[in-house]
Amino acid sequence: MQSVTNAQKAQILMNALPYIKKYSGKIVVVKYGGNAMVNESLKRAVMGDIVLLNLIGIKVVLVHGGGPHIKEVLDRVGIESKFIDGLRVTDAETMKIVQMVLAGQVNKDLVSLIGSMGGNAIGLCGLDDRMIRVRKQSDDLGFVGKITSLDVEIIQDNLDKGYIPVIATIGTDKNGQAYNINADTAAAEIAGALNAECMVSMTNIDGVLRDKDDPSSLITDLTLAQADELKKEGVIAGGMIPKVQCCIDAIQAGVKKVFIVNGMVPHAILIELLTEEGLGTMFVNKYSEGR
Amino acid sequence: MQSVTNAQKAQILMNALPYIKKYSGKIVVVKYGGNAMVNESLKRAVMGDIVLLNLIGIKVVLVHGGGPHIKEVLDRVGIESKFIDGLRVTDAETMKIVQMVLAGQVNKDLVSLIGSMGGNAIGLCGLDDRMIRVRKQSDDLGFVGKITSLDVEIIQDNLDKGYIPVIATIGTDKNGQAYNINADTAAAEIAGALNAECMVSMTNIDGVLRDKDDPSSLITDLTLAQADELKKEGVIAGGMIPKVQCCIDAIQAGVKKVFIVNGMVPHAILIELLTEEGLGTMFVNKYSEGR
Amino acid sequence: MQSVTNAQKAQILMNALPYIKKYSGKIVVVKYGGNAMVNESLKRAVMGDIVLLNLIGIKVVLVHGGGPHIKEVLDRVGIESKFIDGLRVTDAETMKIVQMVLAGQVNKDLVSLIGSMGGNAIGLCGLDDRMIRVRKQSDDLGFVGKITSLDVEIIQDNLDKGYIPVIATIGTDKNGQAYNINADTAAAEIAGALNAECMVSMTNIDGVLRDKDDPSSLITDLTLAQADELKKEGVIAGGMIPKVQCCIDAIQAGVKKVFIVNGMVPHAILIELLTEEGLGTMFVNKYSEGR
Amino acid sequence: MQSVTNAQKAQILMNALPYIKKYSGKIVVVKYGGNAMVNESLKRAVMGDIVLLNLIGIKVVLVHGGGPHIKEVLDRVGIESKFIDGLRVTDAETMKIVQMVLAGQVNKDLVSLIGSMGGNAIGLCGLDDRMIRVRKQSDDLGFVGKITSLDVEIIQDNLDKGYIPVIATIGTDKNGQAYNINADTAAAEIAGALNAECMVSMTNIDGVLRDKDDPSSLITDLTLAQADELKKEGVIAGGMIPKVQCCIDAIQAGVKKVFIVNGMVPHAILIELLTEEGLGTMFVNKYSEGR
Amino acid sequence: MQSVTNAQKAQILMNALPYIKKYSGKIVVVKYGGNAMVNESLKRAVMGDIVLLNLIGIKVVLVHGGGPHIKEVLDRVGIESKFIDGLRVTDAETMKIVQMVLAGQVNKDLVSLIGSMGGNAIGLCGLDDRMIRVRKQSDDLGFVGKITSLDVEIIQDNLDKGYIPVIATIGTDKNGQAYNINADTAAAEIAGALNAECMVSMTNIDGVLRDKDDPSSLITDLTLAQADELKKEGVIAGGMIPKVQCCIDAIQAGVKKVFIVNGMVPHAILIELLTEEGLGTMFVNKYSEGR
Amino acid sequence: MQSVTNAQKAQILMNALPYIKKYSGKIVVVKYGGNAMVNESLKRAVMGDIVLLNLIGIKVVLVHGGGPHIKEVLDRVGIESKFIDGLRVTDAETMKIVQMVLAGQVNKDLVSLIGSMGGNAIGLCGLDDRMIRVRKQSDDLGFVGKITSLDVEIIQDNLDKGYIPVIATIGTDKNGQAYNINADTAAAEIAGALNAECMVSMTNIDGVLRDKDDPSSLITDLTLAQADELKKEGVIAGGMIPKVQCCIDAIQAGVKKVFIVNGMVPHAILIELLTEEGLGTMFVNKYSEGR
Repeated sequence: MQSVTNAQKAQILMNALPYIKKYSGKIVVVKYGGNAMVNESLKRAVMGDIVLLNLIGIKVVLVHGGGPHIKEVLDRVGIESKFIDGLRVTDAETMKIVQMVLAGQVNKDLVSLIGSMGGNAIGLCGLDDRMIRVRKQSDDLGFVGKITSLDVEIIQDNLDKGYIPVIATIGTDKNGQAYNINADTAAAEIAGALNAECMVSMTNIDGVLRDKDDPSSLITDLTLAQADELKKEGVIAGGMIPKVQCCIDAIQAGVKKVFIVNGMVPHAILIELLTEEGLGTMFVNKYSEGR
Repeated sequence: MQSVTNAQKAQILMNALPYIKKYSGKIVVVKYGGNAMVNESLKRAVMGDIVLLNLIGIKVVLVHGGGPHIKEVLDRVGIESKFIDGLRVTDAETMKIVQMVLAGQVNKDLVSLIGSMGGNAIGLCGLDDRMIRVRKQSDDLGFVGKITSLDVEIIQDNLDKGYIPVIATIGTDKNGQAYNINADTAAAEIAGALNAECMVSMTNIDGVLRDKDDPSSLITDLTLAQADELKKEGVIAGGMIPKVQCCIDAIQAGVKKVFIVNGMVPHAILIELLTEEGLGTMFVNKYSEGR
Repeated sequence: MQSVTNAQKAQILMNALPYIKKYSGKIVVVKYGGNAMVNESLKRAVMGDIVLLNLIGIKVVLVHGGGPHIKEVLDRVGIESKFIDGLRVTDAETMKIVQMVLAGQVNKDLVSLIGSMGGNAIGLCGLDDRMIRVRKQSDDLGFVGKITSLDVEIIQDNLDKGYIPVIATIGTDKNGQAYNINADTAAAEIAGALNAECMVSMTNIDGVLRDKDDPSSLITDLTLAQADELKKEGVIAGGMIPKVQCCIDAIQAGVKKVFIVNGMVPHAILIELLTEEGLGTMFVNKYSEGR
Repeated sequence: MQSVTNAQKAQILMNALPYIKKYSGKIVVVKYGGNAMVNESLKRAVMGDIVLLNLIGIKVVLVHGGGPHIKEVLDRVGIESKFIDGLRVTDAETMKIVQMVLAGQVNKDLVSLIGSMGGNAIGLCGLDDRMIRVRKQSDDLGFVGKITSLDVEIIQDNLDKGYIPVIATIGTDKNGQAYNINADTAAAEIAGALNAECMVSMTNIDGVLRDKDDPSSLITDLTLAQADELKKEGVIAGGMIPKVQCCIDAIQAGVKKVFIVNGMVPHAILIELLTEEGLGTMFVNKYSEGR
Repeated sequence: MQSVTNAQKAQILMNALPYIKKYSGKIVVVKYGGNAMVNESLKRAVMGDIVLLNLIGIKVVLVHGGGPHIKEVLDRVGIESKFIDGLRVTDAETMKIVQMVLAGQVNKDLVSLIGSMGGNAIGLCGLDDRMIRVRKQSDDLGFVGKITSLDVEIIQDNLDKGYIPVIATIGTDKNGQAYNINADTAAAEIAGALNAECMVSMTNIDGVLRDKDDPSSLITDLTLAQADELKKEGVIAGGMIPKVQCCIDAIQAGVKKVFIVNGMVPHAILIELLTEEGLGTMFVNKYSEGR
Repeated sequence: MQSVTNAQKAQILMNALPYIKKYSGKIVVVKYGGNAMVNESLKRAVMGDIVLLNLIGIKVVLVHGGGPHIKEVLDRVGIESKFIDGLRVTDAETMKIVQMVLAGQVNKDLVSLIGSMGGNAIGLCGLDDRMIRVRKQSDDLGFVGKITSLDVEIIQDNLDKGYIPVIATIGTDKNGQAYNINADTAAAEIAGALNAECMVSMTNIDGVLRDKDDPSSLITDLTLAQADELKKEGVIAGGMIPKVQCCIDAIQAGVKKVFIVNGMVPHAILIELLTEEGLGTMFVNKYSEGR
């Protein structure tokens, strides 16, 4: 870092000014998952970014999954993971583990890490205040839920008090039974219900690439119509489809902008939100305002 | 219930009036543990009591432990429980399980049960907003913490918004490392920090008995001085000592009244707080006001 | 009461929970008159009910008449009561007595009784803040007023501050002249203007009976359409008509539910509002929700 | 009025400016009684003054008695008035009349008059919210009360909402029994409890006169010490003593200034408070600030 | 003043009551210019009026120009004034002087004078919070601006805090360049944006005269339609046109009433707003309410 | 800037985090004068820094002088500047120019510049709300004032509403006469009255140098005791004395930290407040916390 002069440092802070101004007082939802979650050093960087955004007046909500952690505990207690169309078959026994790991381990560990960096985090899941209400998605899948309604008042209340809500994506039916739900979908719906200014989806891809083997073919901006076109053309295909779909869902739920960024890039959130460069692909409804 | 007339029902509601008046707008901390936690029907009754108290304007905070649940999971993953002087030796591996079970399973299950009965609960632990700060109690015990400071602002904020905070007793050091802490002690300190009007400690005893084999020898009221005397006399002895000590701690931390009630009596909280009878033993600093 | 066990007491309190939840924070107008007003023991029971409702977070407004008390003072000062179609002919002299008795005696006595039971009541009449504006109903009747407009802000302000408003039904014209007004009509209009959740009309009948001599023929629920039908059939007839009309007026003014209960039943309000039984006849606009 | 030019009118309004500034947002208690209460034209002038003060941002509280009105009704129902040392012997029967007349007639008539002049008045008595608590003064006098405590929160709440509280001086014991109390004393204590900026006592004298037969001997300012001296000298004597005592009581209860003015002078309050002249005698604790 | 009795003084204060009531809590914009601004004694009278209005609860905003003061300084530094169609040609040099004089001298002198009379004034111009946004009116005129948008939040915020905003009419473009703007137009637009209850335009004429040489031919009320008619008839002509136009603009911008008064009459504002007489010509949209 | 990588940018933003946290919600007073004020590019940089600090939640107050601008206008109108002990002799004529230039030109130009960069500034001087009250310092100096009292409520009110107050240092006596006051002293007293977290004094020196000709001899931290010592040693001498004295005054008035920075360094404020380096000399009362 010695090569950066004080003048450059000041200039970088100054350059962040219009972005800070744009997001100040607004809600930003960060969907956090994948490898950035497993690598301890990256995890610290992500939490640091969130604390910084919170400090400069942005209302950050962190929504996380935790597949690898769940698998680890299930393995340990000897429950075999079964999947149908990529969705985990979740019997009562499994659901109990899923809840423990997501709401008790992953969630509170993130809260604790944010706390140790000076942020004031609060760890919630869809069971708190019955925030995420679901119904059974299909009998085959067991306790896998499809969101029927969201009540984000408990998030809003804690945002208003200055806390950083960290949300484990577990749902509940009216009897209080817990359900496993898709974290991407949940993040998109929460961001929509909160009228978030933007959502940042941290994945393991650089964004939408015209040629998936060529990083330089990154598409930096997409309207919903253009995304649709790219799906038809087969550019958005395979494993990229659910990642893009989650972004489209969020835009359709009312979020103004959604960014796919690569969680393996340290401080990807800060770079995307507070510098002129940006990193990944931005989704908007229609072209109306700059990045 | 058919034998109770409408007139009697109305009279019972009327009789609750002075007690509702006394506790309305005040904070009541319920320490919940033991068998009342394992029996599903009793658990429903306790949560129902809490929802009712909340509805009639009392600010209820539920502090819980979860020893049997922890043991169950530890057994399942093949970690052997070791104890020194009744305290669980907690290595990093064990602590991870303790956190998952307390903050992810027991805590959120209680939140969910309250929710299904119409209450608005929020599940927190000492990691949230770094509420419970601890230091290592002794090197032998591993991650067993002794509370060094409490910041109950996150509880107060959520009480003010009308939520029922449900607290899992896990602590954190300044690095964000989680610690196992004694639930009784934590409840007493939280109640003190909140200036609670009273604490109800749900145990498996009827209260302080002059003759431990004679339920009719229940002592209904004790000042701190009298409790001290009874310890010297050997009336308070054995397993009763830590239960009584927790009550004394709470009084000394500034709680006005502390009740030991038997969690096996359905609706023990309601009977203790809202009827003229009362059930167990009440601790006060000095005699000054009626039950 | 010795035959009611602690468990039963707790159960009764628990059973009240959904009703408390339903009415909490809502406005309930109680129209109070007739014999329940003269019998001291019943009066205490009614005021006790009101204090309890207030304590558990229900905003209660008590609207009262006071015919027998007026008659007593008029007799005493030697003014003869004349009636045209059941309405008291009210000359200036009489009006002065009516105002004194309603606003100075009956009203403040109720306030005082509520106060002695721990409630915070405030005694108002339609002259306060010119709350109830009237015009002369007919020249023959003298100072008998018909409500032209209502400004319930003074009631709302005092409800917001936690007081129990007790309202004597006297109106004023723009010159400040006081008028005698029908208490039933005033209660219905006040309840409407306050968007009350419900009105309880305490009368000397059990409700609407299909056969007026058979208490078991009580009709427990009536929509406006059904009430209309019963009037045509002659089931609602005679002295019951004005009592029913007041309920219909309140529903039409926007009150969600109106109950006729028999004021001679001790704690009729509590039984009607907080138990599953109910007592009298409930009027609703259309069938939409349970009691 | 034709002789007053526009320029003079503007000048008079301007001259009121420092006085408006002095009292703006402050509490002024007006003690109202005697002949100014019986003469309809004077009564209108007094209520007009109060409405004006309220409009220009002064918080006015009107405390009134009503001896002549009570006497009139007692005569009419044939109850003979008895007095011991100038205090009315008040049996239960009499008290009932006193309450009716003060709280129902005089109080609400004043409220109504203020209302007809555009003010927002609320009529209260010591029974409302148990504002004025008393004990029996002596057994001989029956229900004549001596104030033991005051809770002026209900006055403060309604002042805050912009209403003009009009207070009938009736007290209550803990059982809710009403008591007759001295209006002068009550006004002084209410003014003290409200930390009033000043109290204006409307009487039938011009103020303290050095020679009671010479109006030009008016003493315009008195400290408590000077008043004491004048009592010793016999200048303050006879019927003037209780009038002066009430002023002294108010000063000792914390009111900054107390004015005795002659209620027979139209608009005496406005002249005293808003013009440089002043009218009667001003009492202060010590000399510290100008009129 | 000796000829005005106390009774007359009180009566004048009382007569002001309905007017105080009408304007209390409302916004009154005073457009201040011309000779009343140069004459020190008149200036004190105007500021005194404003302080009084503020004290009695009216929210006053003072908008001023300052032509003569600008001319004086321009002369002194040797800049020649040029005008096109009555508008000052404003080059960069001139604009610098205009800003200094209006925002630094005239504005702050008025603020200071109000302060010395006990009012709490705050001096603002269109540059503060970029309140008045303009574009160049024509290239010939240099920095003469035409208002494109107004953001009166800074005025509202300071009114809410009890200050008297004093506004110098300077505008800004998006680069922060200052512009000279017409004070009459600015006052009208500010009054409209604030939803002012009324605007008082202090000029050097008595109002609209049917015969400009006959003061007794004053027209006291005009609707917009009538004013239009008078323009066609040639009654409103010459120098009177822009003065009338400003009033019409204000009415069309939503101000309820606009008064033209002669600033040479001492306390013209008080006489116009707080006495039954009135002075000049009142403009309204349509006839709907009295003066 | 191309040599700074995204990772470095993010790191610089992250490094600012603890400093943002330290100052967030706190008041920072910037004393702005000297050459940094004349150089347009530096002026933009300073205003940009202030807008950034405001955006990230720091409450910034800008206090400015304007000696060179005053001199320019005085020269232009042919008023000769006279000084006694470095203080400008200020006759009435001169004072008028000083006020115009400071409050009308320099102040509003800064406001306008902040506005054009996206900040919400409000330009005030000591005449507004009579914020800075002074008495004549000495007869020889004319209208040069010494501060007798400060009422910073108007600054606080506008900070609370989110504005950036820009303060021209002019004072007023009780008659509303304007006075010229020392900007350094005024800034120190304003910072003290606001309980500012820190004051940044922008000067034309690098800080306190042990050897005034050797920039590397900069002393980075000084307690008041150490500063005292350096004065005795003659290290702080000559023109440095008043600059240091202003810092000492501010510390003594209760400001926690005061920084002298060189206004010629672009973004000196950001570098001093938001980076680990710092630039100039920091004054504290005693050593207690880090930079």
